[in-house]
Amino acid sequence: MSSRVDEILSWYGSDHPGVLKNLRWMMETGTLAGTGKMVILPVDQGFEHGPARSFAKNAAGYDPHYHYQLAIDAGCNAYAAPLGFLEAGARQFAGKIPTILKLNNSDSLYSSSDPMPAVTGSVDDALRLGCAGIGFTIYPASCERNEMYNELRELAEDAKAAGLAVVVWSYPRGAAISSQGETAIDVVAYAAHIAAQLGAHIIKVKPPTDHIEQDAARKVYEAEGIDVSSLDKRIAHVIQAAFGGRRIVIFSGGAAKGTEAVLEEIRGLHAGGGFGSIIGRNSFQRPKAEGMDLLKQVMAIYQG
Amino acid sequence: MSSRVDEILSWYGSDHPGVLKNLRWMMETGTLAGTGKMVILPVDQGFEHGPARSFAKNAAGYDPHYHYQLAIDAGCNAYAAPLGFLEAGARQFAGKIPTILKLNNSDSLYSSSDPMPAVTGSVDDALRLGCAGIGFTIYPASCERNEMYNELRELAEDAKAAGLAVVVWSYPRGAAISSQGETAIDVVAYAAHIAAQLGAHIIKVKPPTDHIEQDAARKVYEAEGIDVSSLDKRIAHVIQAAFGGRRIVIFSGGAAKGTEAVLEEIRGLHAGGGFGSIIGRNSFQRPKAEGMDLLKQVMAIYQG
Amino acid sequence: MSSRVDEILSWYGSDHPGVLKNLRWMMETGTLAGTGKMVILPVDQGFEHGPARSFAKNAAGYDPHYHYQLAIDAGCNAYAAPLGFLEAGARQFAGKIPTILKLNNSDSLYSSSDPMPAVTGSVDDALRLGCAGIGFTIYPASCERNEMYNELRELAEDAKAAGLAVVVWSYPRGAAISSQGETAIDVVAYAAHIAAQLGAHIIKVKPPTDHIEQDAARKVYEAEGIDVSSLDKRIAHVIQAAFGGRRIVIFSGGAAKGTEAVLEEIRGLHAGGGFGSIIGRNSFQRPKAEGMDLLKQVMAIYQG
Amino acid sequence: MSSRVDEILSWYGSDHPGVLKNLRWMMETGTLAGTGKMVILPVDQGFEHGPARSFAKNAAGYDPHYHYQLAIDAGCNAYAAPLGFLEAGARQFAGKIPTILKLNNSDSLYSSSDPMPAVTGSVDDALRLGCAGIGFTIYPASCERNEMYNELRELAEDAKAAGLAVVVWSYPRGAAISSQGETAIDVVAYAAHIAAQLGAHIIKVKPPTDHIEQDAARKVYEAEGIDVSSLDKRIAHVIQAAFGGRRIVIFSGGAAKGTEAVLEEIRGLHAGGGFGSIIGRNSFQRPKAEGMDLLKQVMAIYQG
Amino acid sequence: MSSRVDEILSWYGSDHPGVLKNLRWMMETGTLAGTGKMVILPVDQGFEHGPARSFAKNAAGYDPHYHYQLAIDAGCNAYAAPLGFLEAGARQFAGKIPTILKLNNSDSLYSSSDPMPAVTGSVDDALRLGCAGIGFTIYPASCERNEMYNELRELAEDAKAAGLAVVVWSYPRGAAISSQGETAIDVVAYAAHIAAQLGAHIIKVKPPTDHIEQDAARKVYEAEGIDVSSLDKRIAHVIQAAFGGRRIVIFSGGAAKGTEAVLEEIRGLHAGGGFGSIIGRNSFQRPKAEGMDLLKQVMAIYQG
Repeated sequence: MSSRVDEILSWYGSDHPGVLKNLRWMMETGTLAGTGKMVILPVDQGFEHGPARSFAKNAAGYDPHYHYQLAIDAGCNAYAAPLGFLEAGARQFAGKIPTILKLNNSDSLYSSSDPMPAVTGSVDDALRLGCAGIGFTIYPASCERNEMYNELRELAEDAKAAGLAVVVWSYPRGAAISSQGETAIDVVAYAAHIAAQLGAHIIKVKPPTDHIEQDAARKVYEAEGIDVSSLDKRIAHVIQAAFGGRRIVIFSGGAAKGTEAVLEEIRGLHAGGGFGSIIGRNSFQRPKAEGMDLLKQVMAIYQG
Repeated sequence: MSSRVDEILSWYGSDHPGVLKNLRWMMETGTLAGTGKMVILPVDQGFEHGPARSFAKNAAGYDPHYHYQLAIDAGCNAYAAPLGFLEAGARQFAGKIPTILKLNNSDSLYSSSDPMPAVTGSVDDALRLGCAGIGFTIYPASCERNEMYNELRELAEDAKAAGLAVVVWSYPRGAAISSQGETAIDVVAYAAHIAAQLGAHIIKVKPPTDHIEQDAARKVYEAEGIDVSSLDKRIAHVIQAAFGGRRIVIFSGGAAKGTEAVLEEIRGLHAGGGFGSIIGRNSFQRPKAEGMDLLKQVMAIYQG
Repeated sequence: MSSRVDEILSWYGSDHPGVLKNLRWMMETGTLAGTGKMVILPVDQGFEHGPARSFAKNAAGYDPHYHYQLAIDAGCNAYAAPLGFLEAGARQFAGKIPTILKLNNSDSLYSSSDPMPAVTGSVDDALRLGCAGIGFTIYPASCERNEMYNELRELAEDAKAAGLAVVVWSYPRGAAISSQGETAIDVVAYAAHIAAQLGAHIIKVKPPTDHIEQDAARKVYEAEGIDVSSLDKRIAHVIQAAFGGRRIVIFSGGAAKGTEAVLEEIRGLHAGGGFGSIIGRNSFQRPKAEGMDLLKQVMAIYQG
Repeated sequence: MSSRVDEILSWYGSDHPGVLKNLRWMMETGTLAGTGKMVILPVDQGFEHGPARSFAKNAAGYDPHYHYQLAIDAGCNAYAAPLGFLEAGARQFAGKIPTILKLNNSDSLYSSSDPMPAVTGSVDDALRLGCAGIGFTIYPASCERNEMYNELRELAEDAKAAGLAVVVWSYPRGAAISSQGETAIDVVAYAAHIAAQLGAHIIKVKPPTDHIEQDAARKVYEAEGIDVSSLDKRIAHVIQAAFGGRRIVIFSGGAAKGTEAVLEEIRGLHAGGGFGSIIGRNSFQRPKAEGMDLLKQVMAIYQG
Repeated sequence: MSSRVDEILSWYGSDHPGVLKNLRWMMETGTLAGTGKMVILPVDQGFEHGPARSFAKNAAGYDPHYHYQLAIDAGCNAYAAPLGFLEAGARQFAGKIPTILKLNNSDSLYSSSDPMPAVTGSVDDALRLGCAGIGFTIYPASCERNEMYNELRELAEDAKAAGLAVVVWSYPRGAAISSQGETAIDVVAYAAHIAAQLGAHIIKVKPPTDHIEQDAARKVYEAEGIDVSSLDKRIAHVIQAAFGGRRIVIFSGGAAKGTEAVLEEIRGLHAGGGFGSIIGRNSFQRPKAEGMDLLKQVMAIYQG
C-alpha cells in the first residue's frame, strides 16, 4: 500500500469504506499499482461505432474475452465496457481485474446534433457482475444535458451507497458549441468541473487544445493571464479546475493514430500532472503484441 | 444432454442457473434438441398486420391453439407470441413447449417513419404464463431507439432475475436509414452487436444483403477486405459481430414465399453458422401439413 | 349454472378463479343469465358529451341511482360507468348488479383529431366500489395509441391479479384513418384482435360496415373471398378475428335511433354469433318504461 | 347534528367514515352549521395574482394569521389556502376551523392560453397540517386537462383513503373555448358534471351566464326547453347536472365588486338551490369589519 | 439562546423540532449568532459560470476546502454549495459550520431563454453530508416553472420530514418578462411570496429596483400608494410580501463590485428589515483577507 494511494483516498472523505475499497483496488492493480496513476482499457466502440469499424482491423477483438485478457496482460488498472461485453466474461475473469460497467451508450445508426445516450445498464447489473465501478457519459452543451445529469445523479447516489466508484466521461457536445469548442481549454476545464460537482470520483475528459470557446471565459483567461500555450499547462489547468487537484482526472486517447503521436501526447498529460489515460482504439485495434507494447510504453511514461 | 448445449450455455456465465435452465429447455426441445440449433415459431403477425392479412389464407390460424399445436407437432424449439395469444392456451399447453412472451408490439392502423412499439406485457405476465423467456423488438435507427433500449434494459434485468431467457428482435428501421439499409450487411451486423451489448441471450436479425449502408463502415469493409459476397459469408460475419460467436443468433424468415426460396436461404444461414430460424408466415399461412413439412425440411437442413 | 357459461369460462384458462368468479357473475345475472349472451348498460355519456346532451331528454337520468335501477329492472348483465356515477350508488346497490368501472374517459370541451382519454379511476377504486370488472377505451389509429395500450397493460395486469374482469372498448379513431374507416370491416376486425392480444376478457367494438379501409387488407379480403356483404357475416368475421371465437365480443348500440332500427341491427349481431350488446343512449334517453321495453326486446332476440 | 347534514352525508355512501367526519366537521362549523349550506374563505390570490394585487388594499392580509382569524370571526365553514399560508398558522389555529389545502396553483409571472397549474402540496402535507380536505383546480377545455385529471385522480384516491374531503375547483379555460364560454351555462354545467364524475365531494364552479357555447349543446337546450333565463334557474340546472342534486355544489364570488352586487348574486345562488359560496377577494380586500359584515350578510341569505 | 431567535422560530409552527434545530443552528452560528440576521457564503459559481470565471481571480478558491474555511473564519452563518464541493470537505469540516446542499444547478455551456436547472443532488445526499438544509432555485416566469415547483415540492416535503431547512433561491427569469423585470419591485415581491407559498423556510431574492414590470401590478402600486422609491422601502415591501414578515428573507449580493457599493446596498437591506445576505463572488473572488474583511463589514452593518 503506497502513501500516494492513501493520500488520494483522503480526498474522498464523504464516501464510505466500500467505495474506498474499490478505488483502492483500481489504484493497486496492474503495472501502475501504488503510483496513483491509472491506465484503463475501455471497449465501448462496438456499441458506439459498430462492430466492423471497431474490431475488423484486429479481428480477435470481436471476442469479449480478448479485452479482459488484454487489460490483464498489459497491466491496466481496470477494464471498462457496456453490459453485454462484461456479461460475456464476468464469470471467467471475476476478480482478475477491476471492471467498470459503462451505464450509458450511443450507437451510430442514429445521430443528432444534440446527443443523448441510452441508459443500458444498472447499478444492480454492476453489482452482479462484480464490478469496481460504474461509468457514465455526460454531454454538457447538449440540450439534453439535464436529463443526463439527472440520470447520473440517481445512478451515482445508488452506486456510492453500494460501494461502487463513479467514473464520468464528460464530453461537451451539442449545437450550442462549435466542433472546435468540444476540446477548447475553457470547455474541457468546465466539463471536468461539472463532473466533479456532480459527484464523480474519477473524471475522464479529452486532452484540451489552446482554443477558447466562450467569450465570457476568454476575458478571464486573458485578464488573469492563464497560460494555456502548452499541453502540460492546459492539463494542469484542467486538474486545478477539478477541485484544485482533489479529484482523479484522466484523459482519453482519442482516435487511432501513430505510436509516437500517442506517446508524445501522454508525455504532455504526465508533465501536466494528469492521473492517467483511457486508451481504447489505440490499443485493441493493433495486434495484441503491438497493443500491449504501446500500453506498456504509456505506463512507463506515467511511472517516470 | 449434449455437449454442444453445454458449450453454448458456458457462454452465459453471468446468468444464474434459472436462466440456464430455460435456455437449456429451449435447446433440448423438439427435432433439433441437443444440436444447439433452434427453429422457433413466432405468431405476432395478427397484431402487427391485422387478423385477416395473417390468418385468412389458412383460417385455422385464427385459433390460438392452432399455433401451440403446430409448434409442438412440427418439432419447434419454442413458440413466441403476444400476451393474448399465449393467455388463450397457456393452461392447456403448459409445459408442452417452451413459450416466449413477446413484450412489445406495433399495429398497422397507425404508422410512422420512426417506429415505436407499445409495451404489451410484463415479466410477471411471462412468469404467470409459464414462459421460458421474453421477446422484445428494438428498432435501432429510429429516433425513438433510446426509449426502446431503456424499456429493454428494465425488462431484461427483471427477466434475468426471474430466470427467463431474453430474446431480442433487432430490426434497424427509421428515417435515418434507407429502406435498403435495413438489411444491409453493416447494419445487420451492427444490430446484432447492439442486441448483444444490451444483454440479449438470443438475437434475431434479418438475413443481410451485400449492400453497405454507412460510409464510415464501407471504408472499413473495403480496407479490411471483409467478404460479404455470399449469404453464408455474411451470416458468419454477423455471428462474429455478436461477440465472436458467443451469442445465439437466429434469423427471420421474412415475407411468405415459395418453399424452395425458403430452403435455399436456410442453407445459406446454416452454411454461415447460423444458430437457427424464426419462421412465422411461411409456416402458419400454409395448410398445416404443408407448414409442418416446410418446418421439417428446414430442421433437416440445420441437422445436416 | 349452464354448460354454455362453463364452456365460455374454459377459454380463460390463464386467469385465476377470482377472475372467473366475476365473469361468471356477469353471465349468470339478469334475463340472459346462463345463455352466454350479455346486455350491458353503459352510462359514460355525461362525461363524454355533457350532462344536458345526455340526460335532458329523460331528466330522471341526471340521478345516478336511476341507471343502477334501470339496469336491474331491465335485467341487464352489468352496469358500466365512470368513477363518480358508481360512487354515488355503490353502497345502496352493492351486490345487486355487477358493475364495471370505466377507467378512462374523454370530455367534449376539448377535442383533437387524435383522441387520448384521461385515466379517471384505478383498480383500487374498482375494488372498493365492489365492481366485477374494469372498463378501458383504446383508440387504435390515434398517434397516442401506445400510451393507451401501456396504460391498459398496467391496469389489466393489476385487475387480473385482483380478480377483476377486463372489458376493452376498442374504437379505431385518429388522423391516420378516415371517418368511414372507423367502422370498416377490416378495421373493426383488427380492433377486436388488438384488444384480445392486449389481454381483454370482453371486447366491445362497433358493428362494422362493408367498407374496407386499408389497401393491404383489401387484397386479402378479395383474394381469400371473405364475404362481408351482410351484417351477420361481418359479425362472424369479427368474432373469428378475436381468437377464433375464444373471446367474448359485444357490440355498441351507437347513437340514439328508432326502436326498429335498433332491433334490426341486434338481429344481425345475433345471427352472426355476437355475444351481446352494450346499449346506452338508446335505453336511458327514453322514458324508463320505453327504455326497459327496448332492452327486453333486445334480450329476447339474444335468447332466440 | 341536523337531519339535513345527515341527508347530505348519505349521498357519499362510497366513502368511509373518516371522510364523512371531515365533511360533517365543515358542515357543522360556523354560522351556517347544520344548515347544509357553506361559506368558505379561500385565499390563494397571493399566489395567483401576486401579493400587492391581493393584499395592498387591506394590508393586514399580508399576514397569514389574518385570514385564519377572519374565517373564524366571520363564522365561515372552512378556510382554503396554499401550502405556505396554511403552514404559517397551522399550529396556532389547529382545530379552530376546518382547513382545505389547495394542492395546485398558478402564478401570473407566466401565462399561456391553455393553463396548467403546478402541484404545490401533497396529501401528506394536508394530513400533517390537520386539514379537513384538499382542494384542486381543473381547467377543462385546456389541452393540458388530461394531466390535471390524472393528478386529481391520484390525489383524490389518496385523500379519500386518508379520510380527507376532496374539493374541486372546475374552471373551463383554454384555447378551445371562448372567453365568454368560460361561464356559459352549458359549459359550467358540464364542468360541474366532470368534477362529480372525477369523484369530487364538493364542487366549486362560477355562476353561469345564459350564454350557450357549444352548438351540440344548444340544440338540446332548445329542443328540451331548458330554461336558463334567470340565475336561479341556471343554478338549479347546474346542481341537477351534478348528479341530480347528490353532490355539494358551491359558487365562486369572482372579482371584487360592490356589496349589493355581491348580495344580489348570492340571492340568485340561494334561490336556485346553491349549497353556498366561496368568497375571497370580496371579503379580505375590505377592512376586516366590512369584510366580516359582508360575509355575515351572505350567510344570512343562505340561512333565509 | 436569544429571544429573537426564539421569536423567529415561532413562525415555523408547522415544522417539527428537527427542522427547528437546524434553523436554530444556522441562526446561532458565527458573528451574527443570536441576532436573527444571517450572512451565508454560497459557492455554486463554478458550476454556473465555469471554474476559471469563478476562481481564477483568487486561485485559492479552486480548492473546495478554501470556502469551508472562509465561511468559518469570516463568521458566516452557513455555507452553501453543490454536491461535489460539499462532498470534498464534508468529513474534515463536519459540524464546524452549517452547510446547505444546493440541489439544482445550471451550467453555461448551454443556455435558453427559459432556464431550467438540473437536479444535481438529493435529500439523502444532504443527510449523509451532515447538512443543515437544502437549497433549491426556482425561476418563476420560465415556461419550465411548473417542473421546478414540482421538484421543489417533493424535495421540500422530504427535507422537512428529515429535519432539514429549505432555502429557496427565487429568481424570476424567462421569455415572459423583460431583463429589467427580473429585479422589478413587483416581480421580486411576487417571487418572495411564491417561495413562501411553496413552503420555503428561508427565501433568497435579489435586491429590487423601483421598476414595475406588470401592468396589473402597477395599477395597484399606484392606487395604494406603495412607496418603492428607496431600497429600504422596497426591502420592507418584499418582506411584507413574504407573509407579513413571518418568513426569513435574505438577499443576494449579485455580481462582483466595489466594496463601498456592496456596503451601501447592505445598509439599504438592513434599513428595510432584511434578514441578511448571501454573498458569494464579492467575498471569494478577493484575496482571503480582503474577502473576510468585506464579510465582517457586512456583518457589522447587520449588527448595527
